[in-house]
Amino acid sequence: MRTLILLRHGESAWNRENRFTGWTDVDLTPQGEEEARAAGLLLAGFEREANTEVGVVHTSVLTRAVRTANLALETMGRSWIPVRRHWRLNERHYGSLQGLDKKQTAERFGADQLKAWRRGYATPPPALSPEDDRHPCHDQRYRGVEPAALPATECLADVVSRLLPYYQDSILTDLIRFPAVLVVAHGNSLRALIKHLEAISDEEIVDLDIPTGIPRVYHLSDDLAVMSATYLGDPQVARKAAEAVARQAG
Amino acid sequence: MRTLILLRHGESAWNRENRFTGWTDVDLTPQGEEEARAAGLLLAGFEREANTEVGVVHTSVLTRAVRTANLALETMGRSWIPVRRHWRLNERHYGSLQGLDKKQTAERFGADQLKAWRRGYATPPPALSPEDDRHPCHDQRYRGVEPAALPATECLADVVSRLLPYYQDSILTDLIRFPAVLVVAHGNSLRALIKHLEAISDEEIVDLDIPTGIPRVYHLSDDLAVMSATYLGDPQVARKAAEAVARQAG
Repeated sequence: MRTLILLRHGESAWNRENRFTGWTDVDLTPQGEEEARAAGLLLAGFEREANTEVGVVHTSVLTRAVRTANLALETMGRSWIPVRRHWRLNERHYGSLQGLDKKQTAERFGADQLKAWRRGYATPPPALSPEDDRHPCHDQRYRGVEPAALPATECLADVVSRLLPYYQDSILTDLIRFPAVLVVAHGNSLRALIKHLEAISDEEIVDLDIPTGIPRVYHLSDDLAVMSATYLGDPQVARKAAEAVARQAG
Repeated sequence: MRTLILLRHGESAWNRENRFTGWTDVDLTPQGEEEARAAGLLLAGFEREANTEVGVVHTSVLTRAVRTANLALETMGRSWIPVRRHWRLNERHYGSLQGLDKKQTAERFGADQLKAWRRGYATPPPALSPEDDRHPCHDQRYRGVEPAALPATECLADVVSRLLPYYQDSILTDLIRFPAVLVVAHGNSLRALIKHLEAISDEEIVDLDIPTGIPRVYHLSDDLAVMSATYLGDPQVARKAAEAVARQAG
């Protein structure tokens, strides 16, 4: 049996301010830091009970995921494990909505249009122009990435397309090498991964809410088929956290 | 020009308790955390002034170095850069002295013997037996390492031997790829690296004191020869910090 663990980062500054974040590199709030440490406690308990070890961590290249991983690993006494970072684990790119206030955006474009952008599987928001400062081609962290690969906006279908190669090539390779692999990422990049892992339809996946700070554990067979999936800790806590996330998104 | 930056981790719990640490995985004290953040400020200032960027970080697999790197990078807004960890950057293994009180050790073995172990270039302390819990073969983090490669004790000459291959194969490769490379490690692993970089003799290197929390910047030519070496910040602060380290070691 192989173990894959997904963790969504905790509250960031723009969650709190109710702004579209996407690839904007905002940091965790103190509450987000606390969620990360709490996730570390859950993970340490899981390691003991399942007699397994998180041997490697994968994160996006966004600070809020990196710091969530750092804080969780510190809490687990596992700061020393190998680390991989990749832009393919980044949050969905929110195009020209990035930085806008969610409520103002709803007033400007109408609730239906906003819902289509947020919950339509194949509906990307308006793209950023390459001249826009917010376009990833201006961010040094993507300098080594082929410009054609960098998104100016994304729908969830786009996230699935760019994320899956990383799962298949890098994360699955580590699942062979390590007893357990931790992936710390974002609401929509994890949604894309869960869609693949749990074979969820295009229609259903857009309504899946992933709680922050609560690790989700997958057991995979030796031929890498998913055998089980469960949130760590109290199931009721996980469900309420997912509902809270859904309300926040609402 | 290529830039290599070395950083020695700040105060750890056993520095404070005056015990031999070596490969024992003790954490930073609050003061050590503060030193790491201060190093991050110096590094951020250097990046601005030199118009360069730390593109990758290398650390040992010991928590005090990992956390020093994490805190410095957070301070720099560079949490997202690629990370490499390797046991070859670990502190010198102090053999059966690990965990012992330095003062008691001096009383038991005599000041001359202790000085030979601490400052003799080729004099390792007594080795740990493989049955000893402190032997690295019992630590899961070294499970992927060939047992014959794991030290049971080391003199500084041994550290040079095991560290140089990593510098040559991994760090130098990154110096070609990134504008600046940060290495966060330990008093004796950095001493071994500085011996190589600055061509310091076996006799002189044992008296070189490296201040904690003050980055040392090397400029290398395109054919990887060292052109210059300097501590960041106020030279007097660096000198006093080195003297304080020397006194503590004394």
